[in-house]
Amino acid sequence: MAENGDTKTATSDQLRQYIERIERLEEEKRALMADIRDVYSEAKGTGFEPKIMRRIVKMRAMDKDLLSEEDFLISSYRQAVGLGE
Amino acid sequence: MAENGDTKTATSDQLRQYIERIERLEEEKRALMADIRDVYSEAKGTGFEPKIMRRIVKMRAMDKDLLSEEDFLISSYRQAVGLGE
Repeated sequence: MAENGDTKTATSDQLRQYIERIERLEEEKRALMADIRDVYSEAKGTGFEPKIMRRIVKMRAMDKDLLSEEDFLISSYRQAVGLGE
Repeated sequence: MAENGDTKTATSDQLRQYIERIERLEEEKRALMADIRDVYSEAKGTGFEPKIMRRIVKMRAMDKDLLSEEDFLISSYRQAVGLGE
């Protein structure tokens, strides 16, 4: 009976420890996300457009060939629907 | 003319610096997200259910009164549609 109680407590403790580790990491993630927002705000204050910067960040993360292909397709589709640049 | 070129370079440099700061922060965020996934995996290996743990993490982040209210509503709605516990 005492042993059962101990096992239960050990399991609860273990679960609580996992949850607390996750919470600490989630907290760090939230702090980083706030830092990222701050950089975009700062850039906006200098005259850069955050929405376009986010597009650039995504493009830079893409494979070059895939980006070229996408550029080509977007340009073709724009021409097709009369949105040509 | 040379001045214009310099200004343009200064602006490009500034933009590149902002983008690179964001990329470094995004990289740290990805690393943290991988750490979080690792904790869930480790917990799963010990017999805890990650899906339920994620629910618990959310509940612990909620305001207690709001959680109580939600508990009450969920329980009422379950009863109403014959999913009573």
